[in-house]
Amino acid sequence: MDKLILHEDPRSGNCYKIRLTAALLGLPIERRFYDILKGETRTPAFLQHVNANGRIPVLQIGPRLLPESNAACWYLAEDSHLVPDGRFERADMLRWMFFEQYSHEPNVATLRFWLRFVGEAKLNDYQRSQIMPKRVGGEAALALMEEHLTGQDWFVGAGATLADIALYAYTHVCEAGGFRLKDYPAICAWLGRVAALPGYVPMD
Amino acid sequence: MDKLILHEDPRSGNCYKIRLTAALLGLPIERRFYDILKGETRTPAFLQHVNANGRIPVLQIGPRLLPESNAACWYLAEDSHLVPDGRFERADMLRWMFFEQYSHEPNVATLRFWLRFVGEAKLNDYQRSQIMPKRVGGEAALALMEEHLTGQDWFVGAGATLADIALYAYTHVCEAGGFRLKDYPAICAWLGRVAALPGYVPMD
Repeated sequence: MDKLILHEDPRSGNCYKIRLTAALLGLPIERRFYDILKGETRTPAFLQHVNANGRIPVLQIGPRLLPESNAACWYLAEDSHLVPDGRFERADMLRWMFFEQYSHEPNVATLRFWLRFVGEAKLNDYQRSQIMPKRVGGEAALALMEEHLTGQDWFVGAGATLADIALYAYTHVCEAGGFRLKDYPAICAWLGRVAALPGYVPMD
Repeated sequence: MDKLILHEDPRSGNCYKIRLTAALLGLPIERRFYDILKGETRTPAFLQHVNANGRIPVLQIGPRLLPESNAACWYLAEDSHLVPDGRFERADMLRWMFFEQYSHEPNVATLRFWLRFVGEAKLNDYQRSQIMPKRVGGEAALALMEEHLTGQDWFVGAGATLADIALYAYTHVCEAGGFRLKDYPAICAWLGRVAALPGYVPMD
């Protein structure tokens, strides 16, 4: 495999997903740091040379650039034990990864970003008006995960897959966004199983 | 392949993606209709037997159920010409599919749903406050697509892939959400290429 460079902000769970996937697979990955809050992913140089969408993470593979965290995890893992063998199970893993980006991250991750890193006092009126809808959306996402994990150890099949990694990233730090993990005992048990995987690395 | 049933609302671009993928691959698919506006995907029976997340589409494959439109497209197409052979290209296709669900659909599709199907007069204050942010987000997504398609015919590689199908679904009807397609000439040319694919079926 070509040399891997992760363009990241270490506070981002989306970036952490890629680093955790690489660690679980034993793949060395070089890290380049950007500060989102200082606008370092919106500079002309970043937009031109790293990602025209102005977002991290971007996984660099030799000379090629791959934005979108879950696509980068797929690139690293597609022939590994983190992707199931069965056709339905593979699609079902992607189902949870799309759920993560559509129903979980915009609620759970955004509230953490606003409340922990921006600071509630600095939010504008529009952001403030979104706190309650995002709280409701985030609780719904966590409740669906709780229901799914009641009676099974992993999101798909009998072992950890990229679905678990994608959903772990922002779930395990969701209390910084005002969610209460102890309301979700099956999620708590599953978080423990992920953290016990061989090769696991914590978020910075 | 097991018998395929698409649980859908025909007004939904997410449902149309799956029907278009099946059509391009020549796969027969049975359709079951639900009216989102009448709450038919939030009934106890739907939540228990089709999707606990209360959303369509759901692709039923024999007895098994697969929510999330892009995961369903992947299931249908993963061994076909709609998914690239190269490892990077396959991940790059998923990159555009995650972009579609994160940066495009929540803006472009939601404005169409609100303005065309709910009706502007019936929006609540919170929805009304989101029109302008979603307009800005939608234009940014379309601008990124326009830039990418300037100089290349398809999102990934030399032919149509699931990335094109995923992005086509809500882009080709975006004017119902107040976007102006003629501002995006490269997108317009690409929409024509998608509609000319052998086996193409239009949205109902």
